[in-house]
Amino acid sequence: MFIETSAQYRQSLVGRQLEIYAGGERITEVTQHPLTIPGVNAIALLYDIAQEPELDALMNARSHLTGAKIHRYSHIPQTSDDLLKKIQASRQAAEISPISGLASWGVDALSALSIVTYEMQQDLDLPYYDRFLQYLRHYQADNLWSAVAVTDVKGDRHLRPSEQEDPDLYVHVVEKTDKGVVVRGAKAHTTGAPVAHELIVVPTRALRANDKDYAVAFAISPETPGLKMICRAGSLAQEDSLDAPMSGRFSLVETLTIFEDVFVPWERVFMCGEWQYAGRLVELFATYHRHTYAGAKAAMLDLLIGVAALAAEYNGVADARHIQDKLADLIQAAELIYAAGVAAALEATTAGPGTAVPDPVKTNAGKNFSGVKFYDALRVVHDIAGGLVVTMPGEADYRSPVTQPYIEKYLKGAKGVPTIDRLKLFKFIRDLTASDLGGMWMVESLHGGGSLEAEKIAMRAHYPLEHAKGLVRALAHLTSG
Amino acid sequence: MFIETSAQYRQSLVGRQLEIYAGGERITEVTQHPLTIPGVNAIALLYDIAQEPELDALMNARSHLTGAKIHRYSHIPQTSDDLLKKIQASRQAAEISPISGLASWGVDALSALSIVTYEMQQDLDLPYYDRFLQYLRHYQADNLWSAVAVTDVKGDRHLRPSEQEDPDLYVHVVEKTDKGVVVRGAKAHTTGAPVAHELIVVPTRALRANDKDYAVAFAISPETPGLKMICRAGSLAQEDSLDAPMSGRFSLVETLTIFEDVFVPWERVFMCGEWQYAGRLVELFATYHRHTYAGAKAAMLDLLIGVAALAAEYNGVADARHIQDKLADLIQAAELIYAAGVAAALEATTAGPGTAVPDPVKTNAGKNFSGVKFYDALRVVHDIAGGLVVTMPGEADYRSPVTQPYIEKYLKGAKGVPTIDRLKLFKFIRDLTASDLGGMWMVESLHGGGSLEAEKIAMRAHYPLEHAKGLVRALAHLTSG
Amino acid sequence: MFIETSAQYRQSLVGRQLEIYAGGERITEVTQHPLTIPGVNAIALLYDIAQEPELDALMNARSHLTGAKIHRYSHIPQTSDDLLKKIQASRQAAEISPISGLASWGVDALSALSIVTYEMQQDLDLPYYDRFLQYLRHYQADNLWSAVAVTDVKGDRHLRPSEQEDPDLYVHVVEKTDKGVVVRGAKAHTTGAPVAHELIVVPTRALRANDKDYAVAFAISPETPGLKMICRAGSLAQEDSLDAPMSGRFSLVETLTIFEDVFVPWERVFMCGEWQYAGRLVELFATYHRHTYAGAKAAMLDLLIGVAALAAEYNGVADARHIQDKLADLIQAAELIYAAGVAAALEATTAGPGTAVPDPVKTNAGKNFSGVKFYDALRVVHDIAGGLVVTMPGEADYRSPVTQPYIEKYLKGAKGVPTIDRLKLFKFIRDLTASDLGGMWMVESLHGGGSLEAEKIAMRAHYPLEHAKGLVRALAHLTSG
Amino acid sequence: MFIETSAQYRQSLVGRQLEIYAGGERITEVTQHPLTIPGVNAIALLYDIAQEPELDALMNARSHLTGAKIHRYSHIPQTSDDLLKKIQASRQAAEISPISGLASWGVDALSALSIVTYEMQQDLDLPYYDRFLQYLRHYQADNLWSAVAVTDVKGDRHLRPSEQEDPDLYVHVVEKTDKGVVVRGAKAHTTGAPVAHELIVVPTRALRANDKDYAVAFAISPETPGLKMICRAGSLAQEDSLDAPMSGRFSLVETLTIFEDVFVPWERVFMCGEWQYAGRLVELFATYHRHTYAGAKAAMLDLLIGVAALAAEYNGVADARHIQDKLADLIQAAELIYAAGVAAALEATTAGPGTAVPDPVKTNAGKNFSGVKFYDALRVVHDIAGGLVVTMPGEADYRSPVTQPYIEKYLKGAKGVPTIDRLKLFKFIRDLTASDLGGMWMVESLHGGGSLEAEKIAMRAHYPLEHAKGLVRALAHLTSG
Repeated sequence: MFIETSAQYRQSLVGRQLEIYAGGERITEVTQHPLTIPGVNAIALLYDIAQEPELDALMNARSHLTGAKIHRYSHIPQTSDDLLKKIQASRQAAEISPISGLASWGVDALSALSIVTYEMQQDLDLPYYDRFLQYLRHYQADNLWSAVAVTDVKGDRHLRPSEQEDPDLYVHVVEKTDKGVVVRGAKAHTTGAPVAHELIVVPTRALRANDKDYAVAFAISPETPGLKMICRAGSLAQEDSLDAPMSGRFSLVETLTIFEDVFVPWERVFMCGEWQYAGRLVELFATYHRHTYAGAKAAMLDLLIGVAALAAEYNGVADARHIQDKLADLIQAAELIYAAGVAAALEATTAGPGTAVPDPVKTNAGKNFSGVKFYDALRVVHDIAGGLVVTMPGEADYRSPVTQPYIEKYLKGAKGVPTIDRLKLFKFIRDLTASDLGGMWMVESLHGGGSLEAEKIAMRAHYPLEHAKGLVRALAHLTSG
Repeated sequence: MFIETSAQYRQSLVGRQLEIYAGGERITEVTQHPLTIPGVNAIALLYDIAQEPELDALMNARSHLTGAKIHRYSHIPQTSDDLLKKIQASRQAAEISPISGLASWGVDALSALSIVTYEMQQDLDLPYYDRFLQYLRHYQADNLWSAVAVTDVKGDRHLRPSEQEDPDLYVHVVEKTDKGVVVRGAKAHTTGAPVAHELIVVPTRALRANDKDYAVAFAISPETPGLKMICRAGSLAQEDSLDAPMSGRFSLVETLTIFEDVFVPWERVFMCGEWQYAGRLVELFATYHRHTYAGAKAAMLDLLIGVAALAAEYNGVADARHIQDKLADLIQAAELIYAAGVAAALEATTAGPGTAVPDPVKTNAGKNFSGVKFYDALRVVHDIAGGLVVTMPGEADYRSPVTQPYIEKYLKGAKGVPTIDRLKLFKFIRDLTASDLGGMWMVESLHGGGSLEAEKIAMRAHYPLEHAKGLVRALAHLTSG
Repeated sequence: MFIETSAQYRQSLVGRQLEIYAGGERITEVTQHPLTIPGVNAIALLYDIAQEPELDALMNARSHLTGAKIHRYSHIPQTSDDLLKKIQASRQAAEISPISGLASWGVDALSALSIVTYEMQQDLDLPYYDRFLQYLRHYQADNLWSAVAVTDVKGDRHLRPSEQEDPDLYVHVVEKTDKGVVVRGAKAHTTGAPVAHELIVVPTRALRANDKDYAVAFAISPETPGLKMICRAGSLAQEDSLDAPMSGRFSLVETLTIFEDVFVPWERVFMCGEWQYAGRLVELFATYHRHTYAGAKAAMLDLLIGVAALAAEYNGVADARHIQDKLADLIQAAELIYAAGVAAALEATTAGPGTAVPDPVKTNAGKNFSGVKFYDALRVVHDIAGGLVVTMPGEADYRSPVTQPYIEKYLKGAKGVPTIDRLKLFKFIRDLTASDLGGMWMVESLHGGGSLEAEKIAMRAHYPLEHAKGLVRALAHLTSG
Repeated sequence: MFIETSAQYRQSLVGRQLEIYAGGERITEVTQHPLTIPGVNAIALLYDIAQEPELDALMNARSHLTGAKIHRYSHIPQTSDDLLKKIQASRQAAEISPISGLASWGVDALSALSIVTYEMQQDLDLPYYDRFLQYLRHYQADNLWSAVAVTDVKGDRHLRPSEQEDPDLYVHVVEKTDKGVVVRGAKAHTTGAPVAHELIVVPTRALRANDKDYAVAFAISPETPGLKMICRAGSLAQEDSLDAPMSGRFSLVETLTIFEDVFVPWERVFMCGEWQYAGRLVELFATYHRHTYAGAKAAMLDLLIGVAALAAEYNGVADARHIQDKLADLIQAAELIYAAGVAAALEATTAGPGTAVPDPVKTNAGKNFSGVKFYDALRVVHDIAGGLVVTMPGEADYRSPVTQPYIEKYLKGAKGVPTIDRLKLFKFIRDLTASDLGGMWMVESLHGGGSLEAEKIAMRAHYPLEHAKGLVRALAHLTSG
């Protein structure tokens, strides 16, 4: 069934047999547990805004296989314009819910698989691309949303997969049968797995010949026996909401995802032993996903600009020169991040069967910049908003008849601004930037989509260094180097 | 009674009639409420370490009035060495509990008052310094600890106190009698008031003649009728401790502190109408308190260096070149912050009755640097530690027999490191840097002791700019400027 | 005559009656004076590369007026693609000669004039756009290159034009006749005026009604009587070239440009008294010109990446991890700067008669970033290349038979690299980054096209702040602000 | 003869038989050659200011050997106060001439030698410390000034000394006789050798057993046969002075210093084969010399603050908020750099015979910070001063009666500032920051006293990392790491 509305999406999650744990207990229905509800909401939002007429062309696309209308986050990009629309869609969604903007994992992995399965089929005469197309038809026909498990738990990080004391610290094939493969291992911080229709699994790094068994990619249902998910710690219950909690509405559901001898039928296996292609697959996935950040992180900055500007107004200092200066810093960050994505889309190349790939240098330059600048942006927001963001009383005190008069009187800001608005705004800032959720966003800005160091490696790998050296050789009349 | 041990300190807080609110209810005993216990602990620690023989010379001093042994945080600094010992004491305490290291507000305000009351007595023939000395004798005789209320709620910040629509948005004198004064208003983010013996109140800014009524400084007991404290929002209960919560043990208790027609007897009034001295008093207080940051923030960096180094080891990547590089960044930050305090102590001047004042340019340079670098330091720690800091399962899952085996197996790091150690470390990092507590520390790093902008103003005001211009005039043979 | 080749360009400069001064003397032929030759070369290069077949589509365009082929730097942009090609052309030229890449002043001013003259004609029924079109036809027919005089000398900068003690510190109209206007004043740092065919003059800032006389824009020949140019100080003679001087080949010719009662006929006057349009004209010019920086500054970074990579190789340390890390920094800077330009082109709007205008937020974000990062980039290059860049012996010592053997032996680097290559490379780095030319480039990176502060103002002015605030109001349920 | 006055110093340089080359020719008298005069002046200044009565206690000290008064830059530091005075002396001298402030190489090498020769004599029973003391008595008796040759030319930098294809790329012993040793090799960028009385030579890095022959330290006269110096390229002649050239007055004389089988008598040999001590010697030297930067670089910043403040005044914008903000940045940099030196002095330890050693973590933290911030400081100065710094006409045009009236009129700044003052100031800024000299200072800020990377290594090596980890282990209850 084609899932079109958020109601249909929510319904599709009900009654599933998932093995999910959180807070020491098993979660039975993700649509009803306070820890997973914000994650359900985040994906539901993606279906919702795809229904809005004025966003139709942005949030939906035409399948290159069937011509049918599908969600933008199910569409394999064929052109620069497709890539551009993806980051516009990401910015659009993320302006309401940052995590929703980022939730393109599925299509990012599918786009990478479209290329690598094609190349393997061409090079090795193995039917990976045929399988992939069959899977994609099913996926688009139902307009599904998927999570992607990438980062293995890695154990001792300076050892390669096959060098680990425990061979299970990277996901690997432990048995092959006529029907399929059996895999074992665990992936860390899989975002959204409990609220996904599908879980796509890809290797986390380039591999060598003796890591052959670790070269495995596949897609499974979250209900597959042997699959276990343990959620991140954290109470999202908001006893103190002041009417506008971000963390209670939209948030990331992160799991440690365990594959305890999980069986995958061959028609859902997209790589099995072809270690030479593992690095390319994960790099392509990373490129696609980092490209999404251009939209989602620009939107996150838009929110931070909005809160900073409102905080300055509410405090009566919107005209202060140093505040204007700091707002310009945030604006510059937002626009450079987004511009990197636009330029990467415009300079896309095609690969495999004609899939469009954003320019990797610009993609990584922008993603890396967004990670570093995010901490600066928090500093600017806190600097402008002031200490009350973390020291003000909470909702219960505001609601109490004993203390409300004092809070109303003394936490009043600029003329015309109701005290409750100022409290809500500061609470919103705290929730987004100086809380459990804020801490998650900070770490996510660095490690989501790969680390700062991985991005630098990618920039160096793809920048035309020989061209730059050639310019200098010509100008300085050099014969070597 | 001279309060010497932490037990005596805790006892001194019991049975007091305070009007404190939190979470919509009144707190009756601060030693027993989960929101204030971490604050009690933070001050108790200061008494505890002053009892350790090897720290005696550091954590205690000899009163310049009586020669009696008193706590370092009750001693008016007389020499560079006193100032140096204060930042060493601060670093010492903060290496266990950052907030304890910072908790020098009381002595910082008293040091500033020692100078300004002396100057007012000299200039205006008013008995402020006599009163101050009498108060100080009592304070040191009991070895008290005090909170300081500085930051008025301010309303519309671009208006001066007397220009506000509501005259109460800065604390001011509403009545004078033979016995004393009556004050009204509110102060934001007073740290530690519910767990203090005394509350010292000073103006928050320089004043003009028509703000005369706002020029008021005094000391009162937290039990004084009309004084109300509303605590910051936030649950410090740690359902997920992994045995080592920072936030549950030591934290800041911040209050919105309301003065509802509070009576202060004359012997406790240290300024009343002398608006010309208000700016000097708050600037001196700020200088003293920002100087403390040199110790406490260096210690905070020491902790961050420690967690980053351990995380790298636990992950098996301690030797990675980029990690070594990032550790050097943290080390440099810690040492420059501390060095600024050392140099400020060494270049101290004396003022008023002989009180030593740290050099304001270096003091502010270091404090400002610490505020900006703190966000960078968080980024480095998160970068090194990795995403598990925010995505790992919590204690309940670890304790559950169903999930523990998976967590034990799959979150194992480098050889020889028990998984539980890795979990505890990551939990500690999360608690300190990516949580409600972490958010508080971020904002505190910017706004505690005054904003970045206030520090820049102080640097400019005290740097010998004419000397610098003179050097250039001489070298470039200029006649003007 | 249509100027097509560099030889024709050089010829077009011969025998002109210019009043140019440098080093206390008058320059008679700019094609033969060591101070202006590098400037002639820089523009000649633009004609040269437009002749290369593979660059034809990039460096040339079709006039939107006549359809004739003209130089890219004479073409009024009609589309995003035109804007994109302009920054590609800029990067292309600047990879050989940074100043050539930047030399789009003329077309940037003409593009701005196309819009503002059109708007004035529409709004005020004055024949400015007709005049402009007539002038543009002539300009494109001869394929000219022009300099632009913008920055008035300004006197006391906190005073507006009409408030200055000396009314001549901004260029203004002193007389109007039937035939035209007489202007007086001076413009600072006009780049390329002595080697231009035309000099276009525009106001430097927004104006008020009482600054009416300062609202003047026009185009004149550099030979116009009363026009005087005094060149920047600096000897570009390279006694020490090691065969590859940058500064001796391509450089900026900057002049203080004086208008001593210069007569301008009406057909070349494009604004005269319409003070309401002055700000728009200069802002549009700035936007166009700052957009060019996306190409030229990325190319400058490409050169710096090239020299850094070669220096590392020549020193035998290309594989050092910290050097790889620093190269990634330079790459990121280059790509973000360029990406801002690409995105600004893609998000262009049209104005006036249909002229394409790059997005001002992204344009200014990129330009500002390039100014700040340039100094960082110099630090990285110097860090990698090492001290010999400034301490090595010069060409004369290398050529001397007495010292050459020592230099050959002792300044040898990695195996296979001739010592002379290493010397040339270091000399090239010194010339480009640590010399009179290097100093010029530094200051140019900040002030060329407008200051950092001006760019921040432009970012704030054009960023959709109300949209960002609206997002927050919706999410946090706010009613005000 | 005790050299007391600058006249005596200048006289001491006359008539020496040095083999110095510059510009392809041999320099016969350093006191008369335009390239070496600024270097003579820089050292002469050190003698001059030591004669000023009010600087006597700062610029002079009492020899710990004889009690006689000697120059501060000849005194082996015995106490924290000695180290503190050294950086104060450095700041004092550098405020007139930055290079003079840095010129402590000699005493820095002697201080390091005092420790290492002592340790070698203690450990190995070799008479190095006896020789050193004898040499030091002679040195202090004549109040000499010396240059130090440290950085070997290094060839392929990823190879160790004995691994190089040409064994001469690090200075080494090629012969030992009864009378002494013969050394061969070359050192890069030796500062001040042509104007020194003595040249002290030390290894450039830690060595291994097979690099034994490279473990050599000694002192020789610049007149020693076989010693050849080739000066850095660069014309310091200032045809365009506007009365106040920095580069023409005080500058660095850098040489490639060649040891062509130079004989050194045993009494001047301080290490010969003891490879285990080479690393310690060079690290101690680096620590002493980097400590000097705390004074000299703070002074450099003082000058930059002075020029920025004057430029703002001369332009009429001293009150602009963004300029105030930027000045605060420069002030903060100056004070943190200096504070690091003060704290390093205060936390000095003693080594060897009782020589005081500044704390290496703080020393390196400050030095590294100064290198990075210097480029930022240049950006700030250029930002404030404006483009005229590099585009204004020169002295010849100012002196020419034809152009002077225009320059006088049009380059006028704020009321009351003579145009000539503004020109001189801008020329001074250009000379110091955007010229050949400016380029040298930039590179010097990074590489003088060792590279950024070397400083990071030193910080990590000396920071008490185990202490920091221990704090975390205790707080988080960890058992490992």
